[in-house]
Amino acid sequence: MPMDEFALIARYFSALGRGEAVTLGVGDDCAILRLGPDEQLATSVDTVLPGVHFPEESLPEDVGFRAVAVAASDLAAMGARPLGMTLALTLPEADELWLHSFSQGVAAAVSALQLPLVGGDITRGPLTITVQVLGAVPRGQALLRGGAAEGDGVYVSGTLGDAAAGLAVLQGRYRPEPELAEYLERRFFRPLPRLELGIRLLGSATAAIDISDGLLADAGHIAAASGVQLQLQPELLPLSAALLAQPDREQALRWALAGGDDYELCFCLPAGVSAPGDCTRIGVVAAGEGVSCAGAEQLDIGYRHF
Amino acid sequence: MPMDEFALIARYFSALGRGEAVTLGVGDDCAILRLGPDEQLATSVDTVLPGVHFPEESLPEDVGFRAVAVAASDLAAMGARPLGMTLALTLPEADELWLHSFSQGVAAAVSALQLPLVGGDITRGPLTITVQVLGAVPRGQALLRGGAAEGDGVYVSGTLGDAAAGLAVLQGRYRPEPELAEYLERRFFRPLPRLELGIRLLGSATAAIDISDGLLADAGHIAAASGVQLQLQPELLPLSAALLAQPDREQALRWALAGGDDYELCFCLPAGVSAPGDCTRIGVVAAGEGVSCAGAEQLDIGYRHF
Repeated sequence: MPMDEFALIARYFSALGRGEAVTLGVGDDCAILRLGPDEQLATSVDTVLPGVHFPEESLPEDVGFRAVAVAASDLAAMGARPLGMTLALTLPEADELWLHSFSQGVAAAVSALQLPLVGGDITRGPLTITVQVLGAVPRGQALLRGGAAEGDGVYVSGTLGDAAAGLAVLQGRYRPEPELAEYLERRFFRPLPRLELGIRLLGSATAAIDISDGLLADAGHIAAASGVQLQLQPELLPLSAALLAQPDREQALRWALAGGDDYELCFCLPAGVSAPGDCTRIGVVAAGEGVSCAGAEQLDIGYRHF
Repeated sequence: MPMDEFALIARYFSALGRGEAVTLGVGDDCAILRLGPDEQLATSVDTVLPGVHFPEESLPEDVGFRAVAVAASDLAAMGARPLGMTLALTLPEADELWLHSFSQGVAAAVSALQLPLVGGDITRGPLTITVQVLGAVPRGQALLRGGAAEGDGVYVSGTLGDAAAGLAVLQGRYRPEPELAEYLERRFFRPLPRLELGIRLLGSATAAIDISDGLLADAGHIAAASGVQLQLQPELLPLSAALLAQPDREQALRWALAGGDDYELCFCLPAGVSAPGDCTRIGVVAAGEGVSCAGAEQLDIGYRHF
């Protein structure tokens, strides 16, 4: 290890490891975490790279927050209670200014999501950030993609398309009012995975997924895993004021249907079961396959994939 | 995702996910794993990079095996029972020949270590391989670094220095007989983490660590965490026939003391407790700090750090 990995970890990351489930954090061969006797482990891993998952010139603090939030969203989609995470960081050099700022973003996410950092690895190389999240679900109750049934309603949380619009703002492709621009950029850099909502949906949702690749793509995963068709009505999509301010209505719809990166949840509920607040019914589950979305054919958003 | 991540995962990795503890493998937002009611989760993450952790020209099959084995060694060092792992792969391009070979190495490790692959992420970027391992330890019994006490014996498993000698062979710095060269290269590329030994040491070892950075460095971690001194006798170090064939005895000792990468275990046992077969007593725990090793001062192996 060309840089002193141990000193860097101690300085920037060791304080982020406290949590209810953490028996042993950073500093031994493994971290040790507790689960309840009737719980199972839920785990997922996500890598983010500059220029692919975030603009090269992003603030390290935003990069750190977002890397954790993106990974934690998979826990939300399963209804898992956060236990902890590990972080594998490959860095071109031991840039302490970068590490200081990055670790502050990680710390903000640890605090916001109650997801302690229990282990990690720092290596010298091209910048890659890999976050592995660990959560606990009540035995046999994890929210899967495969349970949607004909007649279920299809729902999403929050508003859609904001992060894609935020990226357009960052890239100079969309120039709304400054306060709207700030809101949209924040939605891109500081997504808040719906961990509480996921846990609340345990026992009622028949299927769930987080919206990372875009609503059409992610709804398509539910359709494929459940062997059903999800029929969406684009006029029902929940849009923020910032997106409604976009004069090009088709562009706003494109962001909401295919933009992704909002890390909201898409889920299905049996008829008669009411959705939690902040969630919107956007369609219905029917016999068939794939996703149907009247009007989306004209939007040139790669709709052929579905 | 520029390449079709889902197709690549399905083709090369989805079959590697079967295991006793795996309730749900690759294909949903998270994998779901079972632990026993009296178990805790042990987890660790390791990244390996070309040119840093393995020679650039290594066979992808060897790279895949070694990346998994290196990460799994941390489970062995805690006495953890393997549950599963995730793999985050960043690749310059969707090179199917590379992926085919690499996945065969991963498959060989999955099989040898009984460590199913339950999740992952493939991203386009510079080659980095991050493996996160998940294991289960009996509640409160994990082998830590911090329990060594005065009078304990210090032990290592297997033989030391082989992997460092193997790297020297790969780099043309050491040219033994062909069959010895082959053995040493294999010890570098195909380490077998001591998972069974770790489990067997539960309840008897007072401290344990895997030898990844070199015996002196790793014994130093036990000394620091336990607040004791580890007094090692270099003439007791177990050396393979291939290392004993090295005419430069000091070079062989340097490999054994500082080479690392063997992924054997270093552990402490109370006086009177006998070590499992294939393990060698190499010293004793005394009052003080750090590692003492008579004669190592002359070997120019960065001994000043200890």
